[in-house]
Amino acid sequence: MSEQTVQIRTSGKVLQSPCGPIVHGLEDVLIKNTTISDIDGEKGILWYRGYRIEDLAKFSNYEEVSFLVLYGRLPTRSELKEYERRLKSSRDLHPATVEVIRALAKAHPMFALEAAVAAEGAYDEDNQKLIEALRVGRYKAEEKELAYRIAEKLIAKLPTMVAYHYRFSKGLELVRPRDDLSHAANFLYMMFGKEPDPLAAKGIDLYLILHADHEVPASTFTAHVVVSTLSDLYSSVAAAIAALKGPLHGGANEMAVRNYLEIGDPSKAKELVEAATKPGGPKLMGVGHRVYKAYDPRARIFKEFSRDYVAKFGDPKNLFAVASAIEHEVLNNPYFQQRKLYPNVDFWSGIAFYYMGVPYEYFTPIFAVSRVVGWVAHILEYWENNRIFRPRACYAGPHDLQYIPIDQR
Amino acid sequence: MSEQTVQIRTSGKVLQSPCGPIVHGLEDVLIKNTTISDIDGEKGILWYRGYRIEDLAKFSNYEEVSFLVLYGRLPTRSELKEYERRLKSSRDLHPATVEVIRALAKAHPMFALEAAVAAEGAYDEDNQKLIEALRVGRYKAEEKELAYRIAEKLIAKLPTMVAYHYRFSKGLELVRPRDDLSHAANFLYMMFGKEPDPLAAKGIDLYLILHADHEVPASTFTAHVVVSTLSDLYSSVAAAIAALKGPLHGGANEMAVRNYLEIGDPSKAKELVEAATKPGGPKLMGVGHRVYKAYDPRARIFKEFSRDYVAKFGDPKNLFAVASAIEHEVLNNPYFQQRKLYPNVDFWSGIAFYYMGVPYEYFTPIFAVSRVVGWVAHILEYWENNRIFRPRACYAGPHDLQYIPIDQR
Ligand SMILES: CC(C)(COP(=O)(O)OP(=O)(O)OC[C@H]1O[C@@H](n2cnc3c(N)ncnc32)[C@H](O)[C@@H]1OP(=O)(O)O)[C@@H](O)C(=O)NCCC(=O)NCCS
Ligand SMILES: CC(C)(COP(=O)(O)OP(=O)(O)OC[C@H]1O[C@@H](n2cnc3c(N)ncnc32)[C@H](O)[C@@H]1OP(=O)(O)O)[C@@H](O)C(=O)NCCC(=O)NCCS
Repeated sequence: MSEQTVQIRTSGKVLQSPCGPIVHGLEDVLIKNTTISDIDGEKGILWYRGYRIEDLAKFSNYEEVSFLVLYGRLPTRSELKEYERRLKSSRDLHPATVEVIRALAKAHPMFALEAAVAAEGAYDEDNQKLIEALRVGRYKAEEKELAYRIAEKLIAKLPTMVAYHYRFSKGLELVRPRDDLSHAANFLYMMFGKEPDPLAAKGIDLYLILHADHEVPASTFTAHVVVSTLSDLYSSVAAAIAALKGPLHGGANEMAVRNYLEIGDPSKAKELVEAATKPGGPKLMGVGHRVYKAYDPRARIFKEFSRDYVAKFGDPKNLFAVASAIEHEVLNNPYFQQRKLYPNVDFWSGIAFYYMGVPYEYFTPIFAVSRVVGWVAHILEYWENNRIFRPRACYAGPHDLQYIPIDQR
Repeated sequence: MSEQTVQIRTSGKVLQSPCGPIVHGLEDVLIKNTTISDIDGEKGILWYRGYRIEDLAKFSNYEEVSFLVLYGRLPTRSELKEYERRLKSSRDLHPATVEVIRALAKAHPMFALEAAVAAEGAYDEDNQKLIEALRVGRYKAEEKELAYRIAEKLIAKLPTMVAYHYRFSKGLELVRPRDDLSHAANFLYMMFGKEPDPLAAKGIDLYLILHADHEVPASTFTAHVVVSTLSDLYSSVAAAIAALKGPLHGGANEMAVRNYLEIGDPSKAKELVEAATKPGGPKLMGVGHRVYKAYDPRARIFKEFSRDYVAKFGDPKNLFAVASAIEHEVLNNPYFQQRKLYPNVDFWSGIAFYYMGVPYEYFTPIFAVSRVVGWVAHILEYWENNRIFRPRACYAGPHDLQYIPIDQR
C-alpha cells in the first residue's frame, strides 16, 4: 500500500511525538460508519436507528428497543412475540456459569459478570460452531444467523447472571426466571423473589431503554477491538464489561450515589462540587462527557423519573435532594460552565435503584444488562467489514543497547 | 477546546464517510508515546527497552526480560533475586480461581483463562485497594507501588492458571508450583508433574522471551482501552486475553499447527498456500503482519530452535517438514511476495510445543503467559498520562423517524 495523508479534525487534546501528532484518547477519530445510533453532542440529542430516545422512552419498552437496536427497525407484533419468546427461553444459565458466579459471590458483581460471560461462552455450542467457522475466516449467512442467535442469548442471560450474583452474595436461594414477566420485571423478580412494584419495574425498563446504545464509548470500542481479531461474542462482551466497570465510564453511576450517601445533606453539595474544580482533585462523578457539551438527554429523562419515584416512595436518604443541590452548583459554577460539563447519564440513574433496594454495587451491572444489546449490535456491524485494530505507539527511547552480563552491571 | 486538524500518514486502507476519512483498523494511527518496545517493520527488527531480541534470546531468560520490560532496565543481581523471589511467592491461586478453572475444565483454556484472571482480581486485596483509590482519581506513589505489585502477581499466576486447567481437563491431580524451578521449567513441571527435559524448558523460556512485548497489537490495545476508564489491571488483562484469542491474533499459533497436522505431508503445502491466495479464501495462519513487511525476527529465532528440537527428538508428525514446505511456497509465491507477507511469530512456535506434549489448545494460553508482562507494562505506562479512549463512528442513517404504534406497523 502506498502512503497517504489523512486529515482528522478534532477538538481534543493533541500530544506531540517524534512520529507525528497523537490524538489523545482518540477524541473525534472515526473508527467506522454506523447506522446504529447517533449523538448530537452540541444539542444533546440521541437517536437509536433514527428514533429519538424521548419517543422510545415514552412509547416503547426494552424488548422492542433491543430488537430495534439489534435488527435496525421496529418489529411487527408477531416478530416481537417471537423475539420475546426466544429471549425468555434463553434466560437460564449453564451450570458451570452458576458455579463461577457462586465462586465469586463475595466479590464485586462486575468481576463476577466478566467471568460469568466468559464461562457461558465457553460451553455454548452455537458459540463453538461460530468460533470454528471464524478460525477459517468463514462468516456467511449461516454464521451470521449463529451470531444473531448468540447476541440474543447474551441479552437474555445477563439479567440472570446479575440477579444470581445478588442472591448468592446474600446467601439466598436462587430465583429462577419467570416466563410470564417482562425483561425488566423478571429481573427485579429474580433479584428479590417477589413480583416488583409496577413503578419499580417501569423504572428498570426506562433505564434499560435509555442505556441500550451510545455509539462507541470505551466499552463498545473495547468490544470492537476484541472481535476485530475474530475472537467470539461472549469474550468480547466480557471485555466490554471490564471497560464499563471503570469509574470514568459505567462505574460512575455507583460512585455518584456513594457520593450522595456520603454527603447526606444538600447543604454540603457546594463543597463537593468545589473540590472537583481543584487541580488534581477528584472528578465529580456523573458529570462531564466526551461527546455531550450539553445536558445529557438520557439524564434529563431519568431525572424526571427519579423525581416521580421519590414523590411516591419518599427520599429518606436525601439522595434526590443532594443530587439536585449538586446539579444546581454544577450548572452555576464557572469551572463547569466554561468546560461545558453537565450531568450525564450516571448522575440520576442510581437514586431510584437505591430506593428499590438494589445495592449500589449492582448499578453498573444493570448498565451492562442494558448496553449488551449495543455491544452486540456494534460487533455484528463491524464484522460486516472487519479489519483488525492495530494502531501504533511512537517509540521514544534508545536503540541497540549493549547487553551487559549480570555480574558486570 | 478549539478544533484543529491533525495530519496522519498511513499506508493502510482508508474508508470514506460523510464525516471524513476513516483509517480502517487504525493502521499507523498513533495512540501514545512509548519507551517499552519498538518495531522496524521494514527491516524486521524488534527491541525491548532498546535491546535487540536476538541478544536477549541468546543471553537472557524470561525472568530478566520481564523485569526489563516492566521496569525499563536490566536488573542487578540482587534486584533480580528479589524479583524472582516475589514472583515465586505469588504463583499460587486464590481458591475461588481454582474453582472457576475447575468449572471450565472441559472448555477451551482461553475461556478459562479469561474467567480465571477476572476471578483472581475479584478477591486480590491489593487490587481492591487500588480500585478504591482509582475511584476517586488517586494514582500517586502508593498506588503505583500497588499497581506494580499487581503486575508482578499477574506475571506469576498466569502459568499456574494454564497448567491447572490442563490438569483439570485431563482429570489429573493439580501439581503445585515448585520454588526451586525457573518460570519456564516450573510451568512445564506444573503441566506434566515431572521435571522437564532441559531442551523443552529452554524452548519455553525462549518462547516466553520472544513474546514478552510487541508494542500495541490488538490485545495490548484492548488493555489500554479498558484501563483508560480506570478499570483495574486484572480486568484489563482478562480483556486482552479475549482479544489474543482471536485467530487473526494470538489464536493463529493454534491454527498453524492444526493446519500442519491436517496436511501431514509436505507435498500438500502448495495446495494450502494457493487456497489462501483465492479471493474470500481462508487466510494462511502464521503468515502476514500489520507492521512487519519482512521476515518476523521472532519467527527466525524460533524456527532455529524448532529445527534443533526436532533434530533431537524427531519430527514424527512431519510438522517441521510441512511448515518448511509451506514457508518455501509462501516465499516463492507472487501473491505473498507482492503483499510482503512473511511467516510471523505464530508460524513456527507451536511445533516444539506439540512435541513436548502440549495440546494445541494451550499454545495461545502460553502466548498469554508471556505477553502478560507487555500488557501490564503498557497499562502502567498509559496511566502515567491517562485519557479515556472514546473515538467516534460516523452515523450514516436517517434521523427523527416517527414512532409508529405496533398495531399500525
Ligand atoms: C466522562 C469523562 C471521562 C470525559 O473525559 P474527557 O472527554 O477526556 O474529558 P477531559 O478530561 O478532557 O475534560 C475536559 C476538562 O473538564 C474537566 N472535567 C471533566 N469532567 C470533570 C468532572 N466530572 N469533574 C471535574 N472536572 C472535570 C477536566 O479536568 C478537563 O479540565 P482541563 O481541560 O482544565 O484539564 C470526564 O468528564 C469524567 O471523568 N467525568 C466523571 C466520570 C463520569 O461521570 N463518567 C461517566 C460518563 S457517562
Ligand atoms: C496478521 C493480519 C491479521 C494482518 O492484517 P492486516 O494488516 O489488516 O492485513 P490486510 O488484511 O490488509 O492484508 C493485506 C493483504 O494481504 C492479504 N493477506 C494478509 N495476510 C494473509 C494471509 N495470512 N493469507 C492470505 N492473505 C493474506 C490480505 O487479504 C490483503 O490482501 P488484499 O490487499 O488483496 O485485500 C493478517 O496478515 C492475517 O490475517 N494473517 C493470518 C493470521 C495470523 O497469522 N495472525 C497472527 C499475526 S502475529
